[in-house]
Order: sequence, then C-alpha cells, then structure tokens
Amino acid sequence: MDLAQCSLNSVTVKGSRFGEVADLAERWGFGGVGLWRDVLEDLDLTAAATRLRQSGLRVSSVCRGGMFPQPTARLRREALADNRVAVDQAHALGAECLVLVCGAAHGDLAGARQQVHDGIAELEPYARAAGVRLAVEPFHPMMASSRSVITSLGEANDLVEAIDSDLVGIALDSYHVWWDARMREEIARAGDTLFSVQLADWITPIQGELSSRGMPGEGCIDMTGFVADCTDAGYRGLVEVEILSDRWWAEGPASALHAAASGLTRI
Amino acid sequence: MDLAQCSLNSVTVKGSRFGEVADLAERWGFGGVGLWRDVLEDLDLTAAATRLRQSGLRVSSVCRGGMFPQPTARLRREALADNRVAVDQAHALGAECLVLVCGAAHGDLAGARQQVHDGIAELEPYARAAGVRLAVEPFHPMMASSRSVITSLGEANDLVEAIDSDLVGIALDSYHVWWDARMREEIARAGDTLFSVQLADWITPIQGELSSRGMPGEGCIDMTGFVADCTDAGYRGLVEVEILSDRWWAEGPASALHAAASGLTRI
Repeated sequence: MDLAQCSLNSVTVKGSRFGEVADLAERWGFGGVGLWRDVLEDLDLTAAATRLRQSGLRVSSVCRGGMFPQPTARLRREALADNRVAVDQAHALGAECLVLVCGAAHGDLAGARQQVHDGIAELEPYARAAGVRLAVEPFHPMMASSRSVITSLGEANDLVEAIDSDLVGIALDSYHVWWDARMREEIARAGDTLFSVQLADWITPIQGELSSRGMPGEGCIDMTGFVADCTDAGYRGLVEVEILSDRWWAEGPASALHAAASGLTRI
Repeated sequence: MDLAQCSLNSVTVKGSRFGEVADLAERWGFGGVGLWRDVLEDLDLTAAATRLRQSGLRVSSVCRGGMFPQPTARLRREALADNRVAVDQAHALGAECLVLVCGAAHGDLAGARQQVHDGIAELEPYARAAGVRLAVEPFHPMMASSRSVITSLGEANDLVEAIDSDLVGIALDSYHVWWDARMREEIARAGDTLFSVQLADWITPIQGELSSRGMPGEGCIDMTGFVADCTDAGYRGLVEVEILSDRWWAEGPASALHAAASGLTRI
C-alpha cells in the first residue's frame, strides 16, 4: 500500500505526544492519524485540528468511547458522560469516526450485551447532533471479560443492524477477527458500514491479551487478503496501523515507524 | 454436581502417572477419568482397562487425535498414522470418545480447514472399525495459529454435519466457547452429537494461550448455566474437569483435587 492511503495510530508510537505523532505521520507520508485520547489530554483541539489540516492529515479515528456495561446506574451515567466528551473531541478534530470499545461483562454476558445496545442507542442522538460517526469494534474473544463483549464481526453487524442508524457502523481490526471462518462473508455484509479498518498482526505465543501484537507481515494474518476483502466490500477510507506491542514500544518510535512503513508497503 | 457425574482429566494433575490418576479419581468418588496420551506411554492398556473397570471408573475421553493440517503429504501421512494409534488406544481403554484437537493453520486458514475435514473423513472408517467415537473440539480463537483452526462451536457443528457420521461429534470445553454470543443455540444444535463436556474457567489477565485456566468457579464463566445448557441439549455423559494451569500444577495434585472437587460440587 501507498502510505498516503494509510493512517498512523498514535498507540503505535505510544508515549509520543500529539505533535510528535503528527510530525512522524507527515514525515513518513501517511494520509492521516488515528488518535487515542491519551494524546488529546490538555491539548488545544482547535489548534490541533489546524495543525493537521495544514499538513493535509486526516483524523481517521479517535479511540475510544464505549465501556457501556457497568454494574450500577451511577457508573452507567458516568460512562455516558465520558462518551459525550469523546464525541466532542472527535467533532473538534473532524475525526472520521469515534471507535467504540464496547465494554466487558460484569458476570452476565447477555445482560452486558443488552447494555451495549442500549448505551449506543442512548449516545446516538448526541453523536448525530455533532455529526460524529460511531464505530463498533468487534474485539478478540480473549478480551470478553476485560475489554468487550462484542467478540465477532457477525455480532457487531447484528448490533449495527439493530441500532439502524447511518451514523453507527464498524471499526474492523485484523487482529481481532482474522481467525473467524465467517470473516469474509461478514466483511461483505458490513459493506458501507465499515467506518474504520485497522491492521495488526498475530504472533504466537501471545504475551497477555493486550500488547503483544505484530507489525503487518510479522505474524500469520493474510494482510493483503484482509485489505482486499475490505476494499471489495466498498471501504475507501485510510487503513490504520495500530500496534499495541510492548516489544515495539521498547524499541522506540523511529524503529516502530520503520517497521510499520515497511510492512504496509508490502501489502 | 455429584462427583460421580464428573470425570477427572489427567492433565488437571499433570505429572501424575496413570495409576495415580486412577487412585485419585477413585478416592474422591469421580465417575471416570479423562486421559491424555502422555499417561498412556509404555502402559499395559489391557491391565489399565481392567484396573479402571474394577474401580467402576469410565474413560470419558482420550486426548488427543487431530493435527490434520500439515505442510507436506509425508507429514499428513504421519499425522494419520498417529491418529490411528490414538484410535487403538481409545479402543483398548473402552473410551467414550477420542478428542480431536484439529490442528493449526500453516499460513492458509481456509486450506487448513479443508485438511481438517478431509483428515477426519479419512480417519472415520478406521474409527468405525474400532467402534471409537471422534469428538471435534472447538478451540478458543487465540489458539488458531497454534492448536486448532476450528474456532467456534458453530464451525465445529458445521464440520460434524458435513462429515455426517454417527461416530463424529463434539467435545465441548467451557473455556473455549464461553464468550460466544451464539453458544446457547449452538449447544442446542449440537444435541446428541455432544460426546464430551469439559469444564475450565476463564481468569483474566491470561498468562499465555495454554495454561492459565481456572478451576470451576475461579473465573467469570457461568458454569451452572453451561452445564444446564448441555444437559438441556441431551448430554448425559460425565462432565470432565480439565484444568491446564501452571499455578495449580505448581500446587500439586492434592491441592488441585481439593479445588476441583470444591468447584464442581458448587455447580
């Protein structure tokens, strides 16, 4: 892939501040950035949006809203309030979507899934007023009790269809769904509800659930096929490289960028 | 559950020899044992079967056959030969099924899945001649590149239906499938093709893919609901406790048995 079709997610260079992420993306010729909210803390978002616009960098995603299942009504209200802040941030940056990490189960999987549905439905009017698209990210099943009860693309598609809003779609990360025998047909089904496509590779053995991901090409996922399936389904947005990796974080941003660019250009 | 309805899988007390596993199962009042093939090495299987029969212990499963996807024809022949040995062992012990850990992908997931189908179809006549049932175990998706490309119960049900033999069914372990939004309906669909039911609990954060499982009740899986779903589907066999856990292995067999029995009796 041409890096101009790709986006650099800030977590790939974790520890870098907003300005550093933007500088790296511009220097390497990325078409945009994906921004985790840790880099937005205490940031002047208007100035940040201007900085990005001047460089021609799009904001392919802001990460994250979500975490809808909560054990008490008070915590659910707090989660909704935080989601509204995230929508505001995505709006201020002109982001193409807000990624929803939907939240884990507190004992009851079915109840948690209902809370996810209800939480998105409750957030949708606020997102609509701001013109911000919400992107449900199906997560790898190994994170069902720590990150998200939405554990397959099929389930995410069902959820998006149930919500039935042109502002609610899918954020699809290869790392979370590559194993699924139904992946290709579910990508086709997602079609123009694909709001974000992200790449990370699977390396075994994993070291914990969260941060032992590989750069594209380091692991066993057919990245070329994955991107082609998304393109065939109609996706025309930037493809993000979002690598949570203790190993690459230890190497530092320069090495990580070199490896990311090298992997992307081979797809 | 009454322990007489349960079976002690040898890996729960890894490092114990066959006689020790049988002694522990008998002393605690289990209805049977599940046997990994490491405890069968250099064992007189006729004497072992007699020993178990005298104690009234059933052999709920032998683990494992499988590993069908292989990169060369020679390796596929070797895998088939090993599967025949496993069938012979299951037959000699009067085991209620041979568990199939179907095998991981060597780059090409779809090709690997085809090799799994073809391997089981090729093994089936040999298993039929021996009167041994083959139980496809759906594995957690985090093991798709290390253990098995059959990553959901739905996929395993599809495979069993495609093979279409009364000797080919399902081995279902709570640890592998608990996250799946479609689990309950797929258990119902499996119905009398459920040849084995196994319990292990999910504890987060995981330490690697293989051996950080919990005793029933230690983690977040609704074990009572899981067993009830299997019973509702028609399962009447023993329920195995099969815990791969570095932590419990370090504690030793006596502590592991105490914890296993304690967890099972609370279901």
